[in-house]
Amino acid sequence: MKSTKNSLSEKLIINKYLKKLNFKNKGTFDFENDGAYLGFNSKHYKLTVTTDSISENIDFFSDDDPKSIAQKITTVNLSDIFAMGASPHSYLLNLHLPNHINENWLNSFSNQLKKIQIKYGFYLLGGDLSKSNKLIVSSTFFGSIKRKLEIFQNKFNYNDDILITGNIGESKIGLEILKKKISSNINLNQYFIKKYLYPIPCKLGPLIAKHINSMKDISDGLIGDLTDMLNNKYGALINVNKIPFSTNTKKILDMNYNFKLENLLNAGDDYCLIIISNQKNRNKILSIAKNNNVKISLIGKIIREKGIHFDSHLDIKNIKKFDHFS
Amino acid sequence: MKSTKNSLSEKLIINKYLKKLNFKNKGTFDFENDGAYLGFNSKHYKLTVTTDSISENIDFFSDDDPKSIAQKITTVNLSDIFAMGASPHSYLLNLHLPNHINENWLNSFSNQLKKIQIKYGFYLLGGDLSKSNKLIVSSTFFGSIKRKLEIFQNKFNYNDDILITGNIGESKIGLEILKKKISSNINLNQYFIKKYLYPIPCKLGPLIAKHINSMKDISDGLIGDLTDMLNNKYGALINVNKIPFSTNTKKILDMNYNFKLENLLNAGDDYCLIIISNQKNRNKILSIAKNNNVKISLIGKIIREKGIHFDSHLDIKNIKKFDHFS
Repeated sequence: MKSTKNSLSEKLIINKYLKKLNFKNKGTFDFENDGAYLGFNSKHYKLTVTTDSISENIDFFSDDDPKSIAQKITTVNLSDIFAMGASPHSYLLNLHLPNHINENWLNSFSNQLKKIQIKYGFYLLGGDLSKSNKLIVSSTFFGSIKRKLEIFQNKFNYNDDILITGNIGESKIGLEILKKKISSNINLNQYFIKKYLYPIPCKLGPLIAKHINSMKDISDGLIGDLTDMLNNKYGALINVNKIPFSTNTKKILDMNYNFKLENLLNAGDDYCLIIISNQKNRNKILSIAKNNNVKISLIGKIIREKGIHFDSHLDIKNIKKFDHFS
Repeated sequence: MKSTKNSLSEKLIINKYLKKLNFKNKGTFDFENDGAYLGFNSKHYKLTVTTDSISENIDFFSDDDPKSIAQKITTVNLSDIFAMGASPHSYLLNLHLPNHINENWLNSFSNQLKKIQIKYGFYLLGGDLSKSNKLIVSSTFFGSIKRKLEIFQNKFNYNDDILITGNIGESKIGLEILKKKISSNINLNQYFIKKYLYPIPCKLGPLIAKHINSMKDISDGLIGDLTDMLNNKYGALINVNKIPFSTNTKKILDMNYNFKLENLLNAGDDYCLIIISNQKNRNKILSIAKNNNVKISLIGKIIREKGIHFDSHLDIKNIKKFDHFS
């Protein structure tokens, strides 16, 4: 890869746009070292790690607002951290930047990161810059969780509750609106496009961690992620009427006869949490959610008969897991 | 990115090629979770983190042996871990894979990773897969270092020794041979191309950590990395005759009148360590290196006069820092 006259130097990007994100944390060496010390030492907490990437033309469009790209790379990782029952601690950023990235872009991108860091309380530990013909942003997030807790994605018992936070399908509707594949109106457009461009992770995970058996965030759709959790060992009985859709989503379904509810069951990128827990903890979990203003719905239970079963007819034979990779 | 008939599924890649790399470590959840627990809890050690990426057509050629790509992504990160005085603990892998990657490629790539993991004693903690039009491999490495130690890259005093491990310029000569830009012979070809394709990190870092003031690995060339360390606050007086070149390198210089020694002072990717230490620790450091079969050379000292100065004439005015980013 050759340098161009317009290209920004690594030093400039680090000093002007990234240093402000380390919040002067000592272990970062103010980004003057090739590595960092992860200042984490606790008898009571352990460290959780997750890593995710988003790429141009797969997870975002090349002309998307850099604020939206910053929102997406942090949400996809924060959602995993929360789903592991952990609270965010710090993160690393690998930026693969094409030549058209300029200082305006970096300014807007880094300011949005800073805003999110302040909101959730974590800092940038380090990273890596490289040139690329497409924009790819990878990030590794560190979180802390009480040492004795262990949140699996596939450990549970028959009759366990299946709960879900938030509303599903909203990000996908936003994307379909942007692609002009479904009808809407100005207000609904604004509502759903924001859901697609600025997804928000569900912070409930660490608050309920000690009351649950398993938890996973929905990144590949309710059907896909629940199937992963069941791991071909258990089944789920789902009460169709309890699957949470917003009033706005119902309006969209009314306006688009060909766009069926079933299409939203494989919708990724809403970052709702699927929670599997013993019935005896139900009230505790519902009340924690309520106290934290998080919508939560009891949608079914774990059963012996393998696979996902619905209590009323749903045409899901064509629903496939949304695979970010393929 | 659309899936193709030939494309491999994420599950197959994880189960067949990556799972063997977690060495059954409990915190990895056998890669069934979206995240992992970093099983690290010590009163006496702290965690070091570094991240680096290598990209097709920048750091390797698209038809390079996958073993070489595995060697490069681990060496570039292990070298940073060692340069921070730490020992490797575990790592994450972000693979951005183009469609032409097949099972043969993955088999060879993952087997080489396994070999290196066994050699240095670390395991794969997790990662992320995505499709890409170019092959990009990012990795985040974790290392452990005694809690009270802190290895900076730019803290030292006047008259401190400047030491360097290994021989510089060998990887660059290998690359020039591959590009057919310099003359060589069959034996030398083999020697240098191996240095370029299979670079090896210098393990001396953690062994001498408590006796030194600063340390950095050479990834951007001796001049570039030493300039970074001096940070426009100190100077270095270098004894030209002490800069370590191998006998084979001297043969290459004899065979190529136009290829000057100066060209090797900005040669990256040899992963030698630059060590700055108090003179009183010199014998201790030299003897540890000797006992571990690591070549080490005292090449100069830290002085007041800013910049890099040579004790005999060297034409370095055209030597620029090798910038991986531009």
